[in-house]
Amino acid sequence: MSDTPSNTPQGQSLWGGRFSAKPADIMQAINVSIGVDKRLWAQDLAGSRAHCRMLAQQGIIQQADAEAILGGLDAIEGEIRGGTFPFRDAYEDIHMNVEARLSELIGEPSGRLHTARSRNDQVATDFRLWVRDACDRTVAQLKALQAALLDRAEQHAGDLMPGFTHLQTAQPVTFGHHLMAYVEMFGRDASRFADARTRMNENPLGAAALAGSPFPIDRHMTAKALGFDRPMANSLDAVSDRDFALESLAAASIAAGHLSRLAEEIVVWMTPMFGFASLPDDLTTGSSIMPQKRNPDAAELVRAKTGRINGALIALTTVMKGLPLAYSKDMQEDKPPVFEAFDALDLALTAMTAMVAAIIPNTPRMAAAAGAGFSTATDLADWLVRELNLPFRQAHHVTGAAVKRAEALGVGLGELPLTELQALDGRITEGVYEVLTPEASCASRQSFGGTAPEQVRARIADWRSRL
Amino acid sequence: MSDTPSNTPQGQSLWGGRFSAKPADIMQAINVSIGVDKRLWAQDLAGSRAHCRMLAQQGIIQQADAEAILGGLDAIEGEIRGGTFPFRDAYEDIHMNVEARLSELIGEPSGRLHTARSRNDQVATDFRLWVRDACDRTVAQLKALQAALLDRAEQHAGDLMPGFTHLQTAQPVTFGHHLMAYVEMFGRDASRFADARTRMNENPLGAAALAGSPFPIDRHMTAKALGFDRPMANSLDAVSDRDFALESLAAASIAAGHLSRLAEEIVVWMTPMFGFASLPDDLTTGSSIMPQKRNPDAAELVRAKTGRINGALIALTTVMKGLPLAYSKDMQEDKPPVFEAFDALDLALTAMTAMVAAIIPNTPRMAAAAGAGFSTATDLADWLVRELNLPFRQAHHVTGAAVKRAEALGVGLGELPLTELQALDGRITEGVYEVLTPEASCASRQSFGGTAPEQVRARIADWRSRL
Amino acid sequence: MSDTPSNTPQGQSLWGGRFSAKPADIMQAINVSIGVDKRLWAQDLAGSRAHCRMLAQQGIIQQADAEAILGGLDAIEGEIRGGTFPFRDAYEDIHMNVEARLSELIGEPSGRLHTARSRNDQVATDFRLWVRDACDRTVAQLKALQAALLDRAEQHAGDLMPGFTHLQTAQPVTFGHHLMAYVEMFGRDASRFADARTRMNENPLGAAALAGSPFPIDRHMTAKALGFDRPMANSLDAVSDRDFALESLAAASIAAGHLSRLAEEIVVWMTPMFGFASLPDDLTTGSSIMPQKRNPDAAELVRAKTGRINGALIALTTVMKGLPLAYSKDMQEDKPPVFEAFDALDLALTAMTAMVAAIIPNTPRMAAAAGAGFSTATDLADWLVRELNLPFRQAHHVTGAAVKRAEALGVGLGELPLTELQALDGRITEGVYEVLTPEASCASRQSFGGTAPEQVRARIADWRSRL
Amino acid sequence: MSDTPSNTPQGQSLWGGRFSAKPADIMQAINVSIGVDKRLWAQDLAGSRAHCRMLAQQGIIQQADAEAILGGLDAIEGEIRGGTFPFRDAYEDIHMNVEARLSELIGEPSGRLHTARSRNDQVATDFRLWVRDACDRTVAQLKALQAALLDRAEQHAGDLMPGFTHLQTAQPVTFGHHLMAYVEMFGRDASRFADARTRMNENPLGAAALAGSPFPIDRHMTAKALGFDRPMANSLDAVSDRDFALESLAAASIAAGHLSRLAEEIVVWMTPMFGFASLPDDLTTGSSIMPQKRNPDAAELVRAKTGRINGALIALTTVMKGLPLAYSKDMQEDKPPVFEAFDALDLALTAMTAMVAAIIPNTPRMAAAAGAGFSTATDLADWLVRELNLPFRQAHHVTGAAVKRAEALGVGLGELPLTELQALDGRITEGVYEVLTPEASCASRQSFGGTAPEQVRARIADWRSRL
Repeated sequence: MSDTPSNTPQGQSLWGGRFSAKPADIMQAINVSIGVDKRLWAQDLAGSRAHCRMLAQQGIIQQADAEAILGGLDAIEGEIRGGTFPFRDAYEDIHMNVEARLSELIGEPSGRLHTARSRNDQVATDFRLWVRDACDRTVAQLKALQAALLDRAEQHAGDLMPGFTHLQTAQPVTFGHHLMAYVEMFGRDASRFADARTRMNENPLGAAALAGSPFPIDRHMTAKALGFDRPMANSLDAVSDRDFALESLAAASIAAGHLSRLAEEIVVWMTPMFGFASLPDDLTTGSSIMPQKRNPDAAELVRAKTGRINGALIALTTVMKGLPLAYSKDMQEDKPPVFEAFDALDLALTAMTAMVAAIIPNTPRMAAAAGAGFSTATDLADWLVRELNLPFRQAHHVTGAAVKRAEALGVGLGELPLTELQALDGRITEGVYEVLTPEASCASRQSFGGTAPEQVRARIADWRSRL
Repeated sequence: MSDTPSNTPQGQSLWGGRFSAKPADIMQAINVSIGVDKRLWAQDLAGSRAHCRMLAQQGIIQQADAEAILGGLDAIEGEIRGGTFPFRDAYEDIHMNVEARLSELIGEPSGRLHTARSRNDQVATDFRLWVRDACDRTVAQLKALQAALLDRAEQHAGDLMPGFTHLQTAQPVTFGHHLMAYVEMFGRDASRFADARTRMNENPLGAAALAGSPFPIDRHMTAKALGFDRPMANSLDAVSDRDFALESLAAASIAAGHLSRLAEEIVVWMTPMFGFASLPDDLTTGSSIMPQKRNPDAAELVRAKTGRINGALIALTTVMKGLPLAYSKDMQEDKPPVFEAFDALDLALTAMTAMVAAIIPNTPRMAAAAGAGFSTATDLADWLVRELNLPFRQAHHVTGAAVKRAEALGVGLGELPLTELQALDGRITEGVYEVLTPEASCASRQSFGGTAPEQVRARIADWRSRL
Repeated sequence: MSDTPSNTPQGQSLWGGRFSAKPADIMQAINVSIGVDKRLWAQDLAGSRAHCRMLAQQGIIQQADAEAILGGLDAIEGEIRGGTFPFRDAYEDIHMNVEARLSELIGEPSGRLHTARSRNDQVATDFRLWVRDACDRTVAQLKALQAALLDRAEQHAGDLMPGFTHLQTAQPVTFGHHLMAYVEMFGRDASRFADARTRMNENPLGAAALAGSPFPIDRHMTAKALGFDRPMANSLDAVSDRDFALESLAAASIAAGHLSRLAEEIVVWMTPMFGFASLPDDLTTGSSIMPQKRNPDAAELVRAKTGRINGALIALTTVMKGLPLAYSKDMQEDKPPVFEAFDALDLALTAMTAMVAAIIPNTPRMAAAAGAGFSTATDLADWLVRELNLPFRQAHHVTGAAVKRAEALGVGLGELPLTELQALDGRITEGVYEVLTPEASCASRQSFGGTAPEQVRARIADWRSRL
Repeated sequence: MSDTPSNTPQGQSLWGGRFSAKPADIMQAINVSIGVDKRLWAQDLAGSRAHCRMLAQQGIIQQADAEAILGGLDAIEGEIRGGTFPFRDAYEDIHMNVEARLSELIGEPSGRLHTARSRNDQVATDFRLWVRDACDRTVAQLKALQAALLDRAEQHAGDLMPGFTHLQTAQPVTFGHHLMAYVEMFGRDASRFADARTRMNENPLGAAALAGSPFPIDRHMTAKALGFDRPMANSLDAVSDRDFALESLAAASIAAGHLSRLAEEIVVWMTPMFGFASLPDDLTTGSSIMPQKRNPDAAELVRAKTGRINGALIALTTVMKGLPLAYSKDMQEDKPPVFEAFDALDLALTAMTAMVAAIIPNTPRMAAAAGAGFSTATDLADWLVRELNLPFRQAHHVTGAAVKRAEALGVGLGELPLTELQALDGRITEGVYEVLTPEASCASRQSFGGTAPEQVRARIADWRSRL
């Protein structure tokens, strides 16, 4: 890609009459990128159209030439959409493939399209357009996932499950509250892609090879035509930075991390030991050897995509490290990680949305687990603080002793006889039992963002109004 | 850190009377974090003050207790600033160290401070405050670096140097234009930290352990006191996500990548072969064995910091992958990478700003190099397009032949006799020589963002008005 | 570190009389490494002793000078061990600190120690010695962990647990067999460190700055004195490569990955839903707010160390990427990741060994789970193949139908009436029930490396003979 | 891949009659791996042949069935080699595609091949065989690169170039010596792949799903047939670890780092400012806009491949982190990073070997640079030590003053008048000039591994005898 082709449209060496030897096969093998960058065809055509119209308006090329070029580009789009376009390794990358075909289709005017343009700004433009579109798609997918989560959260706003820390039962929460935690995360993810999109939405076209152009080009016109907010303000920067790609990969990596957490939870919930949830058959798979298996493959694959996306991020940060300005060929390695990361994220978001919509919680089992494991011990401690004015640290200590006693007797906190509790502090009254059920525990947590069902429903309503 | 201490302020086991054995030494060794998280002391005190005032205003604790606590916290701040505070491994982390000391200083009321709070929301608050401050500091440092670059760019807005692609001479640019490319990059970096800061500026305090609190706390009040825009809307999310740290690490990684590129250029410019620039003695070092050396150590170290920062990013993405909600102890490993990355970035930005301010370009040598290597070949091609209406591809071909001829004759393009040029195309006139000097080449690139000195100065003025 | 000090032992600028300005504070701040590399003190003294003795034997320095130097080095060792050695930032790194102190202690002869040596080969030697020792320590720790696993595996060679794929019950295995899987993994880890150690065990000393020395040094003698197998064969390579550090980090990363898997399992086993295992109180921690918690913090922290170690690996690969030969200052950033990674691995291995030794499996609960979930379905399929000569694929299909029927009836496979089975294939006999217990399933898997208890015991015996 | 197919060879659902719904499209999309893992076809056939022959020899299947199966596998190989094999997404992965086709070709006996085997051990075997072959290929490529380096090193064993530290001229070395540094590095790389190969060369086949098999299989027989040294000793380990892949990726990452350093040097040497070397036209490319360019694209792309390979390493370490035993679907993501990394390394090694063989050093220019920049200052210091018995530190100081004086006079050290030198130390004699030429400097560094041409030639001879 960029400014180093090995063959030209018109059948002569693209870099003029100067090279005596043909590029060796190995050169061709390491250099060719058409297999990867043909995904940029739509962006390449859009960029060429905008450039062509601007050249004509500015009088840099003739209107008739422009029309011939635009007609040729239309024909190429038809061929690509129809599957008849001849992608050829000999033309190295998408830019040269398009230009070569244009030359075959319209002849001489095709040679005027590259006026005031270099592959350096051309590829920077194409790639930026692609990443911008990918960010937009990802935001839409994140919102769809949020919508699915909101629906399920509403449905289960009051259904109890154990809240875990360290994967140990900590305090009861509701399943709806748990799902809403992910609505928050994916909301931040979406805003991260939106910020990246805003920051990258500047036009590199017109930077030419690296120094700008002596032709009277209008970069604001091409910017507008391509939906950019403005032209990039420094031609060296325009052709040599890929921070927009890195930022989108970083956003993808963070989102993938969030997905991996929910995926892990689905895998854990689906074990027979938890039995908190199942997925319908069409979202699980069986085994070639063990006929009884229902495997959460989709969740595991979503979890695994984190690897690919983190790898893509490190790949591109490594490539860019220490490269002097302006364009270096190393930067041709920018596209594989970005394409792969967005493909992986796309699959992961789609699969996760399907799983969220379809997951079947075993609410009785969740509720039972929510009440086990002395999950209301904190509520006892809080009662001691509130009702007996104990300092929290002392209340915590008394509660620890109560848990120890209940453990010894093999009962839950709510079954511990009042005499046992009064042995720890004589002022404890029957009223304490009102806070020792998981329902009461949940209902009491009315603080903003807490797990009380009204709170959960209020947060759902907030999000519905925003999405 | 978080909800798992091994010793308590009041000399009793913090988790009540339940544990029969003392944590083993290895447990202590792997668990203790005070050596790292004592950097959070100021944030921890700020969080405790806000929490304490809110508890008192809401009537959850007595005003007198609140005053005792606030007095104790002031005393602790005095001790820490004075270097007399006893940081103790036995109290595991900064939160327990502060609370233990508070208990020693004020006795019983200290036990009331942790009402309606857990270490889970406490550490999330402290750490978020720290990262927020770090982002602010980094933005300020990036702006200082931009200011240094602007000064030097203005000084050298018209001084020629070779513009490179593939580290081969491509077209002449000005040194000021080159420096302005970095102003753009660091400007985007600053905006990335600013976006991260905005996104993270929500209050986790009041999420308590994970489910919110049954006490009538006012999370909006603590949010305001701590400069947060609002409380976080989901208590599970508040204690279990670290995406704000990941986003700031990603921004740091991208900025470090930009720094590594400029650092690489300084190293290359300072080689005797380039001889484009030098640094004053106080920014270079010598050799223990080779007395003649002037080494660009600071630039090399800036370049190397990319490694540490990328490593920090991967460290935390790896830690967070696949963790079920809510808090897991794994998350204690969030602070070392963040502290190390910001320390590294701080040093790198400071060192780079010093180097930019002090670097001594060898402008005659740069200018000479700008004119060598047929750097105005593109200008010849553009002239052929403009004046003779050749299609660009054909002009490119003719120019290639001209370069080949000049190479054979051992002259530059500007010294190639007109007859030689006319042998390639008879319509070429004397006028062509006007575009074949590097000065003319630079001056001609008047497109927006191009290297023409007026353009460079216009962009400098734009930035001055924005910083 | 390396060839760029900022102050000298004898109070004069180390790089001679040439620098007019003192290094700026920022230079000092970014350059100084003594805070990190003082950990190399023992290696630095060992290297200096070997070098000094060699210089004397080769007649390059006088015997009396050598004795003075060796005496001074002994005194320095005493000071360091006694905690009285003055580590000073002004002397930048461990090498200059030692040399400066030597000068203070013995005067003029100290200036002769650096003959035929540079900090470039000195630091390469010190660091290589440190990494070699770290590999040796790690091998010993891995073997201790294997020994602990072997003991527990022997104890539980016949105790049933569910074997999982996709964290779904797949087939019964024994807990001993499960633990032995990790013995294999840690055995490969140990061999990886051993291979790395062998490969790195070559002597860089004598490479001097980068080109070797004109003095008649004997590199084989210093190699032998320092336990190296031979001198490195190329002086440029000796001072400029750090692949030995990268290889050891890669081995650490793989081992950490293994540890993270066992740690994850411990976390999962300890949830109340699994209830497969617990840890004694001194290897768990409680909660500051939830008095009933017993948290597997140590396991979580072991799991998290993967992050730090992967981060360290990426840090150093990033640093080394694209550095031209020979020494560049970037390489000073080699030590923090290596020190941190080995510290993390050390803690993780120690903590895991303690957990393995102390973990309390709930064998009845594991055994019950091993028999649930149709875990012997494969055994039914295999019986159909063996006894009825069904092709495996067909047997698999019949078994699937049997599982479906059992599910519908709410019974296990072993409780499914024979008539139900015969409805699927009339040739099925009573004998089939013999293979449908988890005990029979386990016992039948006698293939080499299978889970049959005799097989497990045989593999334990193999390992005992090897460790 | 592994134990979760969505369609079966015989047209019935592979997991028996139990699933009522067809897997959703998204499930298919995220689950299918045939596009990637068809690269394992040869390994899959080899594994199936070995397994089939073993089943027959052990009497587990009939000889006639075995012959039918082997015939079918031969037919499949013919189809694949001939390009007529129908790879179908509906059969998910290579294993099911082969089995489905086998069923079409030979009918019922095909259903017997999967006896005593699972996709879990099948894919572990296939992938291990592939990685083993990839290691072998890489070792061969590394040796070819070493051979090319040896040839060029021999040719230039005595040709001077500047040895750099910090990319500043340090001391003269020979170009041959410089190239030999890489022979050492690539030699260690080859031994790293060889060690990995030895460690991974154990047979997973026969581990079945995870617990071993109740059939009387002979794992030693299949091990031998597939060239493995022995069967893996634990069935859970066999199907669930991928450390062999991680180790090979780590070796690839280290080798890529070495390649990136040489690539960076080639890029730097080829700049007009260095002018140390050029590449023939067929290993460079031109520019679409700048006709005079000769770009070192191949070197840049080699440098960039480090990114892809580091990314692959992090991808797989991330995937494997924290996975409970045994097989999880996450592990399907093991193949893309490994395939991509070895493809990248293959290209990079081939391209680098071509560049090494073809690079045209500009030896006069290198030699001139070797003598500039006071590169023999260390030789002066060493002379003062040797001849005047100055302590090295004092000699270093005197030399610094001499350099300062020469700089002031605008001459090299060798042109500095004796009176100037004697002003620094009166005992300096004419003899000193003998050590101040770069030739003398190089020739004097006779220490083992030093840059003296005889030393370089001796090391070349050593390597020739070993390759």
